[in-house]
Amino acid sequence: MGRFAYHGPKLVFSGRMMTELKIIELLARWAPDKAPGMVRGIGDDCAIFRPRPREDLLFTTDLLVEDVHFRRTTHTAGDCGHKTLARGLSDIAAMGGRPRFCLLSLAVGKGLDQRWVEGFYKGLLELARETGCPLAGGDLAHADQTAADIIVCGAVPRGKALRRDTARPGDGVFVTGALGVSALGLATGKGLPWRRHLRPEPRLAAGLALRRLGASAAMDLSDGLSIDLHRLAKASGVAAMLNGDLPAFEGATLAQALHGGEDYELLFTLGARKKAPLALAGLPVTRIGRIIEGPPGQVRVPGGILQPLGYDHFRK
Amino acid sequence: MGRFAYHGPKLVFSGRMMTELKIIELLARWAPDKAPGMVRGIGDDCAIFRPRPREDLLFTTDLLVEDVHFRRTTHTAGDCGHKTLARGLSDIAAMGGRPRFCLLSLAVGKGLDQRWVEGFYKGLLELARETGCPLAGGDLAHADQTAADIIVCGAVPRGKALRRDTARPGDGVFVTGALGVSALGLATGKGLPWRRHLRPEPRLAAGLALRRLGASAAMDLSDGLSIDLHRLAKASGVAAMLNGDLPAFEGATLAQALHGGEDYELLFTLGARKKAPLALAGLPVTRIGRIIEGPPGQVRVPGGILQPLGYDHFRK
Repeated sequence: MGRFAYHGPKLVFSGRMMTELKIIELLARWAPDKAPGMVRGIGDDCAIFRPRPREDLLFTTDLLVEDVHFRRTTHTAGDCGHKTLARGLSDIAAMGGRPRFCLLSLAVGKGLDQRWVEGFYKGLLELARETGCPLAGGDLAHADQTAADIIVCGAVPRGKALRRDTARPGDGVFVTGALGVSALGLATGKGLPWRRHLRPEPRLAAGLALRRLGASAAMDLSDGLSIDLHRLAKASGVAAMLNGDLPAFEGATLAQALHGGEDYELLFTLGARKKAPLALAGLPVTRIGRIIEGPPGQVRVPGGILQPLGYDHFRK
Repeated sequence: MGRFAYHGPKLVFSGRMMTELKIIELLARWAPDKAPGMVRGIGDDCAIFRPRPREDLLFTTDLLVEDVHFRRTTHTAGDCGHKTLARGLSDIAAMGGRPRFCLLSLAVGKGLDQRWVEGFYKGLLELARETGCPLAGGDLAHADQTAADIIVCGAVPRGKALRRDTARPGDGVFVTGALGVSALGLATGKGLPWRRHLRPEPRLAAGLALRRLGASAAMDLSDGLSIDLHRLAKASGVAAMLNGDLPAFEGATLAQALHGGEDYELLFTLGARKKAPLALAGLPVTRIGRIIEGPPGQVRVPGGILQPLGYDHFRK
């Protein structure tokens, strides 16, 4: 809803009562509801949005669950807020969209205090401001375990959304950036890879560039190349052949680059007649293979078939 | 997202592995993604929606958390699915909207089996079909505790959404139906009140009728009349005076009618010059008071000031 309604017992933070009203006042200060097309943001039963003519709207939802997607001991409140929105924005980027607004449903886990809640919103709203994606509403509840559900609305010119079911045999297969960085960060807990794991960057500018370039299909790499390419190929009714050229992040193993999740780079295909770009919005682009006819979803590598292991693999 | 992506360990149900793919196949069977305006539903990074000209879109999100909003021991999986969507639809009804589509993020709690997940979706999709609100996407995860977040998109003619911040002194205050039925059901656990507690009915037809009637303000009664009227008055910068006429459900106490949550009836105001309806879409309408000038949010009753106790009051 546009309102942040709070159902259930009062949130008690470090012995202090934090009422719904207090949280909404805090949000209204931080998240002004005026944005292009936003008739009414936080404060009513629903947010009211006026679409522009000749645009399609994109909608994505992403859950971030405590001890599944993050741990209190390793992720600050701000990291959690950032990551929650970044995951949603990455889906908008994957379809070549521009963010319009977001909604957040937050179930606050036991033992978390007001500082945590404030930190969470600060991390989220900082990224919201940077990317032009104002918070227009949501819901609040308490729970034993923290769970955040982000909804992002984006927009593309009518009929121009990049999809994953439109790759065709003969297309080249490409990725932006370097792979395995998040898995490497998760394994080592330090340096740039760890920071990238905590604060992934949605590839919005690259997504826009891809749409203008006329990519034949695209998706984001959220669960790992092996499973995500399998999904793209399956949705398109085609197979894919990797050429062995993989832009692994320095220090990442081949397995991390192939199966590591949460890189949030873009995976895309491009018709054979299109000139492949060397970079998109400052990100290097690597041709990693091509689309071929074959069993839908099959991903071949020199000498065999790649199993879609993906993200699970790295969560022991 | 349009996709139902599954992040995290495999869902293991009663020793059986239930993969993301299996759940998506099941959903694709049950939730065909073709609906007016839906270019692409389940299956991609985002759902793609093409708005109609001259319409505003409404967005609401509602969390349903295990042991906060429902218990496994009292609510069947189907009840949970129904209630999840009903709560979102009630917000659309409150603004005079027609449902367009919904998205669902579901964190499946420990120990729940495939039958539970199927039952949940069946309950939700049955109501989705009845109300013309197809499921266009969402997200799935596992968790210790079940949490469902529903996002409903609705539509109204441009500028015609009913809001809660537009009541003016002199307006009459009205409610649809009878109050306290859900609280009575929660207290007794039997009969019609209990069934209404388990399967609330969003007042969509009454909301449409209210919009056509030209109500000056409206909201749904989700947390109890005393707190919800307080919210409407506060948002509008006015006070309200109750006349002592309260359409309490037969058998419900005055406290249940005043403070009981989850009735999902509509609370609305009507300019003094408008003829008050006796019924809306088959629901009786009762004039319960009027809007007055006074401290914003204050609700007076004959002989005093009503405290906004609302839903919390009835949770143990």
